[in-house]
Amino acid sequence: MSQTKPRGRPAAMDQNARSILLDAATNLFAHQGVAATTLAQVARAADVTPAMVHYYFKNRDQLLDAVVDERVFQFVELVWTPPAPGADIATVMAGMAERIIRGVESMPWLPLLWVREVLSEGGMLRERMMQRLPFDRVQQLAALIGDGQRNGTVNPDLEPRLLFITVLAMSLMPLATASIWRTRPGMQDIDNTVLIRHVTAILRHGLARE
Amino acid sequence: MSQTKPRGRPAAMDQNARSILLDAATNLFAHQGVAATTLAQVARAADVTPAMVHYYFKNRDQLLDAVVDERVFQFVELVWTPPAPGADIATVMAGMAERIIRGVESMPWLPLLWVREVLSEGGMLRERMMQRLPFDRVQQLAALIGDGQRNGTVNPDLEPRLLFITVLAMSLMPLATASIWRTRPGMQDIDNTVLIRHVTAILRHGLARE
Repeated sequence: MSQTKPRGRPAAMDQNARSILLDAATNLFAHQGVAATTLAQVARAADVTPAMVHYYFKNRDQLLDAVVDERVFQFVELVWTPPAPGADIATVMAGMAERIIRGVESMPWLPLLWVREVLSEGGMLRERMMQRLPFDRVQQLAALIGDGQRNGTVNPDLEPRLLFITVLAMSLMPLATASIWRTRPGMQDIDNTVLIRHVTAILRHGLARE
Repeated sequence: MSQTKPRGRPAAMDQNARSILLDAATNLFAHQGVAATTLAQVARAADVTPAMVHYYFKNRDQLLDAVVDERVFQFVELVWTPPAPGADIATVMAGMAERIIRGVESMPWLPLLWVREVLSEGGMLRERMMQRLPFDRVQQLAALIGDGQRNGTVNPDLEPRLLFITVLAMSLMPLATASIWRTRPGMQDIDNTVLIRHVTAILRHGLARE
């Protein structure tokens, strides 16, 4: 490998160029926001010319579509595995929490991007995520939880249609705010293993001792 | 009351002018972000001249300080009531969840402002909130929960230092995303009473039937 990379290398020279551009865009979007990120900045972060960004993604809209489809959806696919019929709901949801928390280890941009561009009103990925979120799977899960309530295995006072968002919030919010609370005295030792145990404990038994 | 309000009325004419300006600023900050909001927009929303904004708040920093101290902190004060010694932890945390959810009814800007300006990296109220958050109370609460674990009344697998953020996440996240999920078919009937019952149920007993 040479020390100085040629800028504006042709696509054939780097099969991964598109993937590197997507990673660079995803990171910039997470850290400084979609609105504040120019295609020129994406090119610079990926060490290519702006022309190269336009070569792979005709325009900004195409780049945003690709970030949602090929990056954010990697996370969604990782988190959602269909629960087996008759599966214990607490086990299913604790498994989902663990996959969310571990998934962020390999996609550290996820909580930031989610807070900034999906949760925030006017977030620039919100509409795109809405159109692609697996609402059918959320509904199937809610139906399964409702079945559990009817056959007496699931807490009858929880709301099946809110449980997915509850588990997402419990798992993702501490990660999204980690840069705030991890800097506090006596908080540095709280790692993802502790967080998984904590969320699992509440989902399984609530706050009181069994 | 006259139909046409005079613009730029002197302060003495309206004791509430400062409060109206704070409300207008808080709303604009929540819906379009601090960075995108000019003092001129705040003046327009409050139906006063820009000079009036400068009269009450010398500059943008003073306005941000006042929004945090006099609006966001109304919410913090509402949510935090000191738990009685020996209080049942599930009851304490369920009470906190209920105060968060009901508090948003009178401060509907809170979830949006929190997501946009506190949770988001680079959020413009983040530093200000950090300096003012009642970390001492969070620590006292964690100590109380730790006591409960030692005397066998609290689930030993949960992490006392994470419980406040968990309850905040479970309560606030569904409200922050309500404009997304309430528009989905079959979700419109989920109101705050349902949300309070749902969060309380999980905090008290977890997902499995007692």
